[in-house]
Amino acid sequence: MLRLALAAVISATPICVFADPLPSWANTETRARIIDFVGAVTDPEGTDYVTPAARVAVFDNDGTLWSEQPVYFQLTFALDRLSEMAEADPSILTTPTLKAAAEGDLQAIVDGGHEALIEVLNASHSGVDVPDFQAAVADWLQTARHPDTGLPYDQMTYQPMVELLRYLRDEGFRTYIVSGGGLHFMRVFAEEAYGIPPEQVLGTYTDTTYEVTNGTPSIIKAPGIAFIDDKEGKPINIERTIGRRPILAAGNSDGDFAMLEWTTAGDGPRLGVLIHHTDAEREWAYDRESPIGKLADGLDKGSENGWVIVDMAQDWDRIYTGAE
Amino acid sequence: MLRLALAAVISATPICVFADPLPSWANTETRARIIDFVGAVTDPEGTDYVTPAARVAVFDNDGTLWSEQPVYFQLTFALDRLSEMAEADPSILTTPTLKAAAEGDLQAIVDGGHEALIEVLNASHSGVDVPDFQAAVADWLQTARHPDTGLPYDQMTYQPMVELLRYLRDEGFRTYIVSGGGLHFMRVFAEEAYGIPPEQVLGTYTDTTYEVTNGTPSIIKAPGIAFIDDKEGKPINIERTIGRRPILAAGNSDGDFAMLEWTTAGDGPRLGVLIHHTDAEREWAYDRESPIGKLADGLDKGSENGWVIVDMAQDWDRIYTGAE
Ligand SMILES: [Ca+2]
Ligand SMILES: [Ca+2]
Repeated sequence: MLRLALAAVISATPICVFADPLPSWANTETRARIIDFVGAVTDPEGTDYVTPAARVAVFDNDGTLWSEQPVYFQLTFALDRLSEMAEADPSILTTPTLKAAAEGDLQAIVDGGHEALIEVLNASHSGVDVPDFQAAVADWLQTARHPDTGLPYDQMTYQPMVELLRYLRDEGFRTYIVSGGGLHFMRVFAEEAYGIPPEQVLGTYTDTTYEVTNGTPSIIKAPGIAFIDDKEGKPINIERTIGRRPILAAGNSDGDFAMLEWTTAGDGPRLGVLIHHTDAEREWAYDRESPIGKLADGLDKGSENGWVIVDMAQDWDRIYTGAE
Repeated sequence: MLRLALAAVISATPICVFADPLPSWANTETRARIIDFVGAVTDPEGTDYVTPAARVAVFDNDGTLWSEQPVYFQLTFALDRLSEMAEADPSILTTPTLKAAAEGDLQAIVDGGHEALIEVLNASHSGVDVPDFQAAVADWLQTARHPDTGLPYDQMTYQPMVELLRYLRDEGFRTYIVSGGGLHFMRVFAEEAYGIPPEQVLGTYTDTTYEVTNGTPSIIKAPGIAFIDDKEGKPINIERTIGRRPILAAGNSDGDFAMLEWTTAGDGPRLGVLIHHTDAEREWAYDRESPIGKLADGLDKGSENGWVIVDMAQDWDRIYTGAE
């Protein structure tokens, strides 16, 4: 009995972990500010205490949780998928834009602007039920490799951010993705890569239709974009879907400005985080002039808004989850 | 030390509760089927075991979790609010429909059909930021009383369903509302009435706009309806927002047919539940011919689909949370 009792004591004793929650973050002020914020909102004796239910943290994906150069990874997937679909049935390439896309001619898509992009997305992302689409994304992640790093795309997640997500969850936060990327695309890898389940992934979406064929219902991706989860769309989507104002928001471009603005304008302690791509050696360096991930307003007004600007080169000891 | 150890043993011993999880349900086959289902999906040794992450249960609201007669409670709120707004500023009643509505003339709205309804909803539900709108709903719930029962509307929740929601959560389910009712309206009372937090309330919504005035951002309800969470809209909204197919769905009208159909067509154990309003004495009796909560397809095909049809008069020992 005593033995049993002692075993119970041991198993009932919390294991105190003093391990560094953010081992890939350099010992800078950035890191200290994040840890101070988390400490303040989780201290039940402190004036800045926030109940676990209200500990909502939202993260952009492209350029915030994983890389986005030389083009958004989802666009690479779209071209690869179109090329694969065309091998099976060349007749789907009904326009010069689609022919160029299937040949991987990215410049043609860029030159074609918004219309060309929608054409490519429609051809590669619609007319398929959601499970089949997601199986195609999963297959692609297995085989595709990034042209510069040679890594699988879902290994180009930022290790410091993966640690931050886990740290926040360990401290009672719920972590969400709120991204301009496609909802169905991101849900395929978000759980394994980031520990974020499908119901906590918000993104851009196409309409879907509900169709019953021979008694079997399916949800089919329709052409066109029904909602763009970018700029003002981000706070709107958060309010609509989560129904709470977050206390922490992280992004990397002016597409995240409204999300950080709305988050940090709330009462009580709030943290806005911007990832500044400053590391041309280990990743990419870009901001004000970049067509992808343009960051100008955030640099101009972020500091006066009290946002933490993460300098990738200085603040991160490590970049990719899949390397080093 | 021994004392401490024994205390630890006691505190570490799970408290076994054999209390009835569904005390307001009569001891009928309906109750047995629900308990059998929950037992099967939560038994780790059983062939029907479902992991907690996949234990998603979705519930319609009007007529499923609370009453919906003589009209949807939200419409009563709309008329009351319009009347209150008109007291402060009569000039807002710009049309005969709005004038009739502010006088509580329900028949005029019914006669005016969809257009009249939208007019009333626009006038009472838009041009206001979300927190102010929700404060108005909360005020109304405090003071308004149902014409027949004299109860506050949020006390006209069905006690058996409140118990079912709690029972499911105790068994590791996540419970969601998926309703044709307004998202912002329902979130005001869902947590207290049902234990369902804002992020687990899905419903019909207006567009919202993000506006920054003197540096302060707000999310404003716009006129019109952006998404109707009814019929095919329900599985579409569930797929989009939750990203998982539920294993249990409960509704009361043909507006829930697609949601139950999609839920129960999935692999593995699934449960569809339809609340059949059979109790004219304690609640209301209506189905095939009712303009509100019409239930015909569900009665015709529910049984062959294996759905549980709850007979309110027979299966429920008690109706309202707020009475008895
Ligand atoms: Ca981004
Ligand atoms: Ca209903």
